[in-house]
Amino acid sequence: MSSYADRLAALRQQLKADRLDGFVVPLTDEHMSEYVGSYAQRLAWLTGFQGSAGSAAVLPEEAAIFTDGRYTLQVREQVDGAHWSYQSVPETSVADWLEEHAPEGGRIGYDPWLHTKDWVKRATKALSEKGAELVAVRRNPIDAVWADKPEPSRARLIVHSEEHAGKSSAAKRQEMADWLKEQKADSAVLSALDSIAWTFNVRGADVEHTPVALSFALVHDDGTADLFVAPEKIGDDVRQHLGNGVRIHDRSEFEPHLRSLSGKTVVADPERAVSAIFAALEQAGAKVVQKRDPAVLPKAIKNQAEIDGHRAAQARDGAALVRFLHWLSLEAPKGALDELGAAARLLEFRKACGELRDTSFDTISGAGPNGAIVHYRVSEETNRPIELDSLYLVDSGGQYPDGTTDVTRTVAIGAPSAEMGDRFTRVLKGHVAIARAVFPEGTRGSQLDSFARQYLWAAGLDYAHGTGHGVGSFLAVHEGPQRISPVGSSQPGGDEPLRAGMILSNEPGYYKAGEYGIRIENLVLVVSVEVDGSEKKTLGFETLTFAPIDRTLIDIDMLSDGERGWVNGYHAQVLEIVGPQLDGEVRGWLEEACAPL
Amino acid sequence: MSSYADRLAALRQQLKADRLDGFVVPLTDEHMSEYVGSYAQRLAWLTGFQGSAGSAAVLPEEAAIFTDGRYTLQVREQVDGAHWSYQSVPETSVADWLEEHAPEGGRIGYDPWLHTKDWVKRATKALSEKGAELVAVRRNPIDAVWADKPEPSRARLIVHSEEHAGKSSAAKRQEMADWLKEQKADSAVLSALDSIAWTFNVRGADVEHTPVALSFALVHDDGTADLFVAPEKIGDDVRQHLGNGVRIHDRSEFEPHLRSLSGKTVVADPERAVSAIFAALEQAGAKVVQKRDPAVLPKAIKNQAEIDGHRAAQARDGAALVRFLHWLSLEAPKGALDELGAAARLLEFRKACGELRDTSFDTISGAGPNGAIVHYRVSEETNRPIELDSLYLVDSGGQYPDGTTDVTRTVAIGAPSAEMGDRFTRVLKGHVAIARAVFPEGTRGSQLDSFARQYLWAAGLDYAHGTGHGVGSFLAVHEGPQRISPVGSSQPGGDEPLRAGMILSNEPGYYKAGEYGIRIENLVLVVSVEVDGSEKKTLGFETLTFAPIDRTLIDIDMLSDGERGWVNGYHAQVLEIVGPQLDGEVRGWLEEACAPL
Repeated sequence: MSSYADRLAALRQQLKADRLDGFVVPLTDEHMSEYVGSYAQRLAWLTGFQGSAGSAAVLPEEAAIFTDGRYTLQVREQVDGAHWSYQSVPETSVADWLEEHAPEGGRIGYDPWLHTKDWVKRATKALSEKGAELVAVRRNPIDAVWADKPEPSRARLIVHSEEHAGKSSAAKRQEMADWLKEQKADSAVLSALDSIAWTFNVRGADVEHTPVALSFALVHDDGTADLFVAPEKIGDDVRQHLGNGVRIHDRSEFEPHLRSLSGKTVVADPERAVSAIFAALEQAGAKVVQKRDPAVLPKAIKNQAEIDGHRAAQARDGAALVRFLHWLSLEAPKGALDELGAAARLLEFRKACGELRDTSFDTISGAGPNGAIVHYRVSEETNRPIELDSLYLVDSGGQYPDGTTDVTRTVAIGAPSAEMGDRFTRVLKGHVAIARAVFPEGTRGSQLDSFARQYLWAAGLDYAHGTGHGVGSFLAVHEGPQRISPVGSSQPGGDEPLRAGMILSNEPGYYKAGEYGIRIENLVLVVSVEVDGSEKKTLGFETLTFAPIDRTLIDIDMLSDGERGWVNGYHAQVLEIVGPQLDGEVRGWLEEACAPL
Repeated sequence: MSSYADRLAALRQQLKADRLDGFVVPLTDEHMSEYVGSYAQRLAWLTGFQGSAGSAAVLPEEAAIFTDGRYTLQVREQVDGAHWSYQSVPETSVADWLEEHAPEGGRIGYDPWLHTKDWVKRATKALSEKGAELVAVRRNPIDAVWADKPEPSRARLIVHSEEHAGKSSAAKRQEMADWLKEQKADSAVLSALDSIAWTFNVRGADVEHTPVALSFALVHDDGTADLFVAPEKIGDDVRQHLGNGVRIHDRSEFEPHLRSLSGKTVVADPERAVSAIFAALEQAGAKVVQKRDPAVLPKAIKNQAEIDGHRAAQARDGAALVRFLHWLSLEAPKGALDELGAAARLLEFRKACGELRDTSFDTISGAGPNGAIVHYRVSEETNRPIELDSLYLVDSGGQYPDGTTDVTRTVAIGAPSAEMGDRFTRVLKGHVAIARAVFPEGTRGSQLDSFARQYLWAAGLDYAHGTGHGVGSFLAVHEGPQRISPVGSSQPGGDEPLRAGMILSNEPGYYKAGEYGIRIENLVLVVSVEVDGSEKKTLGFETLTFAPIDRTLIDIDMLSDGERGWVNGYHAQVLEIVGPQLDGEVRGWLEEACAPL
């Protein structure tokens, strides 16, 4: 295996051959996916960076890697500072950096299948300040030098049952058709993989942790659709499920098909469809209407079947996590555990339930200082023992046919310090403030974010990530469009109004670099709340995740009566929902862990 | 005086003569001012609307007036629904409405001296969907039919002393010159009237409530400037104060002067400079750099002299308000007061201090249901008696040479209902949450806004305005760039990071249409806060306004210990700062009003 320095050198050679003075390397695929198949892991191959968000820019003499606050520590551990300069987004965007560093009059390449149209516009403008040019490449120069690049997955699609989906694909497409008619449009491009999976009630296995299949689709105003996916991945069951209304084409037919849409009015989503899609439509002479992908909002607003499925998945997942926490309470004090071993044991407990399809992301198993690396990914090189008198943070989730889970617990191993208890309690108070929030319809996630931070702020502390992300139904663990985060943060969604039926995470944290990390994460469902005398439709959250919050880390004196009541009520629910799935010693342990404060 | 129906008919006649199919009427002047001189009150002349923010669009058969949540009630009282349809911003923008209603292929006029470039771009795009065209007019058609249109003011400028300004105009201009060099620009356009007043340390009297002079300016990279203002308004004192570095031209020379800037690099602010300024620069062949007006941020961040001045003005203003509240407590129960009389008496108390230059806006004196009209402006027609067992809301402020004040108190006349007490206490809890907020440097106002709303939200209630606006130093009572309001609200500024030295209002409220209104408003100064163990520079607020909050409206049981402590501490400060200015009965009344809860 070549070194990262060799790879960078090889890319620079290739750029020279391609007459380019630079190249931009995002971490995404042709579908703007967050988690991507191994064939599209170009950023990791080039730099060694293993985080789930980032990008790089390579110039003849300089190279930079761009990550957000979650990865400040991790990028410095994984990427060689001798070859790469570390840049923080959103403070410095790739476009900003190129404006500063690109050679005057240079040609900077980008792959039009890996960037949005808006990105291309902004970067083109920034480069033009230097007389430099942004150039779409036909072939990604990394692919030219990546000798052992994996092939795209050939995994077969499966049917996502109507029992779990709650609505047939034909009904979903008919709603899109009605919407297209309102927009006076003929067709909509679906290029986000989870939108396609949701629309057709199918799931795949082409991308890590997200059960989707590499595909594109066009949905038309008559309710029919064209689905572009490797035909060998479609068995008879899926073909029958899709029915006559869905025409199947090879994935490689997508771009030629777009070029045939001359004269049509086509909706494409500027946040989700890549630049190359817009270019193909425009070259075809189609009229492009820029609107949000029509699957996004109905996918985010869960129906009753999806909510019921989530509840069932959460109960199952909670039992697995409780078994793990019980095991940890027995084994960790013996001093022989490490992060890898703990993560493996947690996976076994999840698998033992029999319904697990995949983890919903790489488990974050962070002991001591590794817990302070927000999106830590344990490896043989970084693996740490779980030591006495330290904190252990575990953030994990499962993909089940009925729902996707995501939960973080922080556990004291031995005796926590008073500072740890203080910080944990501040994080908990923030978590409870979100869980108990009541707000009018129309409120955006950005309007709730500070509730989670206020008790840390009061101590001059904060955390460098959002408070909550949307979550799919047996789909992406990070699902848009909603988020609980300040407007202007590195990820969009804080300005999306919350609606009953949306699921989000509630995950404030605190990270002391080099010492410990704390995060408390449950998933919550947006629900209608009845308030006497209310003048507006009022919303709140119902917590969906059930696992005990470490009582030994809570400084009870810092809790208000309402907060203490919330913790006690929550633990009573954990016992009620998870308890019946357990017996003997584990059950006894859970009862103690859930005892009232 | 012609009727509003006649005026609308006359405008439509004029549009026909000008070969226009419509016209857009904003409420602003050539400087994008919020409060404008009487000569620019075109919206009020045409529609009767007396609010401080709004706009209108007139088509041959339809006309619409656009206001935000603050004016929902008021616009219906002042503007005739038979001729005007009421539209709410930001839900429906003028551009949205025109896109829907403009005749296909029509020519819609606008005055390029009254709109930003961005507005022109958006409206042009919206109209193009209908094949309609947005046309810049040479002469405003309202001016053609407004027979008795007032002349622009001829008020003389005065010098704003360095004692109150804290920095000389030459020093301010030198800082701008240094900044221009960094931007590689030759000159900056200043067109916002308060930016010009601040930069040159002058004040004027051309605009209601804001001590500014109608003018434009160009500041250059050598620290000199061109000031465009009617020369007869400049006396020898001001001329000497301005010095040789400032060349004075007639205001009408501004546009021709812009046209002479061929080849220059000129900074202009797309939010503050009107479309016509950009057009003139572009026609001249100047290179335009779109950046924020360089006076905006240093003007918002008050220096020590300005802060000291504010404190002195607040103490003086507080004494006037306390005298008024005492008088009200004696007179109101007798049943003979009305809104106009109360407002007049308050003005007398303010004048009695001897330093008042103007009110900082039209006093809102709202009895009973009029208190629920957020930006109510009392007139002979709307004047209500102040009745027993009701609430009276008074929002007012003064312009003093050392500072600008803005304060709202809500007072129970007789016995308030339990509901009034509940609502008042929820508003108070929100006010206290802002006053006590502690947050890291970089936090934007939008991140604090919900702290003020949370206790109303919990009861299914809210208020339809922002929580806080910036305030000038003997300048605009609504001063940008910062605000405490959700991002996406009708006024910008919620995304501006708060900085130590900024002054904002803290004014949550609650309004029950047809019954009563509640608002509690103090001004607050952003200050650095020392927090033990803080990992970040931490900020908080120091309250600047001193007047008692009506204890009879507070439901003490709803307050936390911390909130109660804040109220008691605040009242102790009021007594300490305002008390020594009073004696006898008033002093005794204040002591009771400030007694601990």
